[in-house]
Amino acid sequence: MERIDFSNIKITGGFWKQKQDLVRDVTVRAVYDRFKDTGRFEAFKGDTSRFDPHIFWDSDVAKWMEGVAYLTSEKREPQLEAIVDELVDDIERMQDENGYFNIFFTVKEPENRFKYRDCHELYCAGHLMEAAVAYYQATRKRKFLDLMCKYADYIEERFVKKKDTDFVTPGHEEIELALVRLAECTGVMRYLELSKFFVNKRGTVLEGLTDWSQQMYNQSHMPVREQRTAEGHAVRAVYLYCAMADLALKYGDTALKDACKAIFDNIAEKRMYITGGIGSSHAGEAFTVDYDLPNLISYTESCAALGLALFAHRMLLLEKDSKYADVVERAIYNGFMSSISLDGKSYFYTNPLEVLPYMFTRDVSVSHYSIQLPAMQRFEVFDCSCCPPNIVRFIPSIANLMYTVEGDTLYVHQFMESEANIVINGKSVIVKQKTAYPVDGKVQISVSGGDIKIAVRVPEWCDSYEGKTKKGYMYLDLCDNKSVDLDFAMKAVLVEANPLVIADAGKYAVMRGPLVYCMEGVDNGSCIRDIRIDSNSDFILGDVSEFGAPVIKVNAYRRKATDKLYYTKADNYEKTVATLIPYYAFANRGVTEMQVWHLIK
Amino acid sequence: MERIDFSNIKITGGFWKQKQDLVRDVTVRAVYDRFKDTGRFEAFKGDTSRFDPHIFWDSDVAKWMEGVAYLTSEKREPQLEAIVDELVDDIERMQDENGYFNIFFTVKEPENRFKYRDCHELYCAGHLMEAAVAYYQATRKRKFLDLMCKYADYIEERFVKKKDTDFVTPGHEEIELALVRLAECTGVMRYLELSKFFVNKRGTVLEGLTDWSQQMYNQSHMPVREQRTAEGHAVRAVYLYCAMADLALKYGDTALKDACKAIFDNIAEKRMYITGGIGSSHAGEAFTVDYDLPNLISYTESCAALGLALFAHRMLLLEKDSKYADVVERAIYNGFMSSISLDGKSYFYTNPLEVLPYMFTRDVSVSHYSIQLPAMQRFEVFDCSCCPPNIVRFIPSIANLMYTVEGDTLYVHQFMESEANIVINGKSVIVKQKTAYPVDGKVQISVSGGDIKIAVRVPEWCDSYEGKTKKGYMYLDLCDNKSVDLDFAMKAVLVEANPLVIADAGKYAVMRGPLVYCMEGVDNGSCIRDIRIDSNSDFILGDVSEFGAPVIKVNAYRRKATDKLYYTKADNYEKTVATLIPYYAFANRGVTEMQVWHLIK
Repeated sequence: MERIDFSNIKITGGFWKQKQDLVRDVTVRAVYDRFKDTGRFEAFKGDTSRFDPHIFWDSDVAKWMEGVAYLTSEKREPQLEAIVDELVDDIERMQDENGYFNIFFTVKEPENRFKYRDCHELYCAGHLMEAAVAYYQATRKRKFLDLMCKYADYIEERFVKKKDTDFVTPGHEEIELALVRLAECTGVMRYLELSKFFVNKRGTVLEGLTDWSQQMYNQSHMPVREQRTAEGHAVRAVYLYCAMADLALKYGDTALKDACKAIFDNIAEKRMYITGGIGSSHAGEAFTVDYDLPNLISYTESCAALGLALFAHRMLLLEKDSKYADVVERAIYNGFMSSISLDGKSYFYTNPLEVLPYMFTRDVSVSHYSIQLPAMQRFEVFDCSCCPPNIVRFIPSIANLMYTVEGDTLYVHQFMESEANIVINGKSVIVKQKTAYPVDGKVQISVSGGDIKIAVRVPEWCDSYEGKTKKGYMYLDLCDNKSVDLDFAMKAVLVEANPLVIADAGKYAVMRGPLVYCMEGVDNGSCIRDIRIDSNSDFILGDVSEFGAPVIKVNAYRRKATDKLYYTKADNYEKTVATLIPYYAFANRGVTEMQVWHLIK
Repeated sequence: MERIDFSNIKITGGFWKQKQDLVRDVTVRAVYDRFKDTGRFEAFKGDTSRFDPHIFWDSDVAKWMEGVAYLTSEKREPQLEAIVDELVDDIERMQDENGYFNIFFTVKEPENRFKYRDCHELYCAGHLMEAAVAYYQATRKRKFLDLMCKYADYIEERFVKKKDTDFVTPGHEEIELALVRLAECTGVMRYLELSKFFVNKRGTVLEGLTDWSQQMYNQSHMPVREQRTAEGHAVRAVYLYCAMADLALKYGDTALKDACKAIFDNIAEKRMYITGGIGSSHAGEAFTVDYDLPNLISYTESCAALGLALFAHRMLLLEKDSKYADVVERAIYNGFMSSISLDGKSYFYTNPLEVLPYMFTRDVSVSHYSIQLPAMQRFEVFDCSCCPPNIVRFIPSIANLMYTVEGDTLYVHQFMESEANIVINGKSVIVKQKTAYPVDGKVQISVSGGDIKIAVRVPEWCDSYEGKTKKGYMYLDLCDNKSVDLDFAMKAVLVEANPLVIADAGKYAVMRGPLVYCMEGVDNGSCIRDIRIDSNSDFILGDVSEFGAPVIKVNAYRRKATDKLYYTKADNYEKTVATLIPYYAFANRGVTEMQVWHLIK
């Protein structure tokens, strides 16, 4: 199975076109402005007079550069390109003779290079490499790529040949998957070997036992091929799993593949929120234990949801099973998409499944809070601002997740209005999708340029499709200049969680197609936890324009107000109508209560 | 209305006799042993070679001495009395010429006396005064009382006359109510005035703004007569409210009475757990905001529940309304009684309404927890061990809460098998109660020595009583050598919380009479949150012997196991039988899940 790069696919309309336009028109500039305000760009000139650089500022800037590259790939952006070119010049100027590049450890602590495992040097290097690859592929300008190859060579020299660094494997994974891309782009197999080196060493040497680099926290608790559960810091974890899946494919490494499969199943079956969010604890921004998915205190970092989509899509290259694409879909439409405001200017780092504003001010008599809660509103920038530039690079390249090819068959994993130029079995064809997905489930797929076979994912939420599927895909012949019309009927339904997920016991989520819905106080008044959806009521679809997917109304009940604090069960309800909106659109109308899981009656 | 001291009442059988015997036979000695282990007694000899004294160790020892006094009042305990006598000799030896006494500030920091508002000197003084009064009343030995009068005189001199201390009012209230007792015992009105001085000054001067002595935290945010809500550290708060109620009665101070009434209503109608526990936040061990009563992270300190009972009973002296006695009952049978193990040897500081053991080990990848959770098991002693000796003094004096007298009427607030010698309208009578309360609701009240009137509280949970009541009391004539038989039919019922208590939305508690019931994992398996009580099922009463009140069985449902993490609503249940035990008896059979609020179906 082979991947189809997004650069071959143009999103031509609908949900994702609107999001891509938003990133191009607003977000890429908004993130630039905030990074500029906070000194991230001037640091690349060695100017730290206004702000001290953070140890991972390089990665923030690199991800933004990568995002610009993806936008450029679709349509040149001379102003943004000029900024990137200037940054590349800065990198060239600040890079050491030997190839080393890291703003913090060049400007602030040159004596501590490759000394502290948890100081993110290789993580930053990885993001710079990804940006360099992307920028080369978009513009064919080589300089950035060459600089990063030089850095990769230096890393290989120090970590593999001389072995004179104070740690062996990165405290925060990322370079592993970046080196795979660097190898693919340059054809230099040493980079693939270097990636394998880092992946293979992980968990085989005792290193990094400071508070924030404990063994399990960064997936070093055992050799990666022995790992069967998703552990530790969720972003670190999924970045590692991406590299593991990449290497499993490149090397035909079945032990790595088996580890990836088991870890994926552990996430998808036991450790994933209904939104595709992962990492349920603030402590360590981490995975915890099976079925531990509390809503109010969920951590569910945006980068982790995005990374899960990247990992899941890679699994499709290893195994033709729609469960992977289902998780991609769940993550991109919910736990990832919630990270960006409807106006494109502000971002969530954490994506809670429940918001109770009063909890932030309940402790009226002391000056500190007892509970760490996720933010209720998006911010324009963070001290640790990894998520905003991750959004900038992810949305323009979203089409990476649409297709894979094997032999004469095009696998259709995601549904987006689009036009793709794809080479199948040596034959160049144009594949078009016409769809309003996720507003409805109708998808028309057409081909021109030759006959092909397609394998279309039947979404797991779809129970109406009549036909033969194999591991979730229906296999169809699609003749030249013909089209096939699919209709995955989307109806709003109540969803329950496994009884072992005690956080959701007695509660039901509302989903329509791939979209998780939520209730907000701004529509439903206060104490939305006490609203009971009438489980016999129809769900009525409403306006699409405000949120890009329909609002849903449903009959519901509230208990009548009373002065009593406790009273014998009274069955004293009044009727109401509950309004639900797509989860990804929550927190766009001020601070208000929100919940994904509801009572029913 | 006048109080009837417990020393006039002998508990002769039933629930409270068992608890009093437990304190006499086990707890008073167990607490002594643990306090001895931890150096609390040797500190009174000035010996701090093994352990550094804590700033409030004096109060721990004082409460234990008070407990011994109450036990002694009922039946002499020569061994314990000898220990107290020796402690009194120690106090005499360690006390300053001028009357000052505090172990920590005598041995460790004599230069810092009366310097730091939050260092509990006056709090310790108050507990020593209560102990001295109790010991004098039980034994007629005057020495301890005289020493504490001397200390009270010195406090008056420094705080009222010289005004040369570094703070004006105590950072932790307690001395205010103790001075009322000292005044009552000695007839010295200056002590009552000193109490009034501290109460009146509170909230009128800006003092104590360190982290743990913020204005609202210790009820200094406004003059006490203006306060209308229960705020800040819950134990501090209820001790203050006790003194306010005392002074309102002594001085006929209606402004104080109005404040007490409003604060009581705020607690009972908006800020009290169904168990009578109060203080819902770990941050500040404090009251928070109306209807904020989370179960898993409840704080609900044992001392606060006990203090609420003391405050509520005092309100009965100000106003004949059974709502006060109902709160006393709720607190003593539930949120207070849970604080002591069935074997009498270990104690809860916090009393959670839900226990999820896995939460303590969910954060597998980092070495610290994100959430402060109440302990799952009782301990024998704490660093801050205020609760165990509070139990030692509270249970032997529990009969303080039974009766009050006004004119020729005896008010019967609580039901305990007992025999009381009471002077009513100058006439000495013997009043007996025969009852198995709270095992059932039958109470026989008899009198000998003369005709009296009685006003019997009809418990708020009782909906079966047929008769005329006034503010919750039924007024009856009880002739000499006659008895009256009451039957408050106890049936187990589902109870719901006000819809504004979002923590309990969609959930129901089980109560029978005054007892709140809970489910434990040890009886019901894991994931008890997913058990749904069949709301049409009868509650079946079971064994009484294990916990002192009947176990309850009820039909229930669980969802069937599934491999899926999320799935469309399936209504896939299996039948089970849920076992409920009295809340006060939870956590006596090892670490296990527990909950007070349940789903129903």
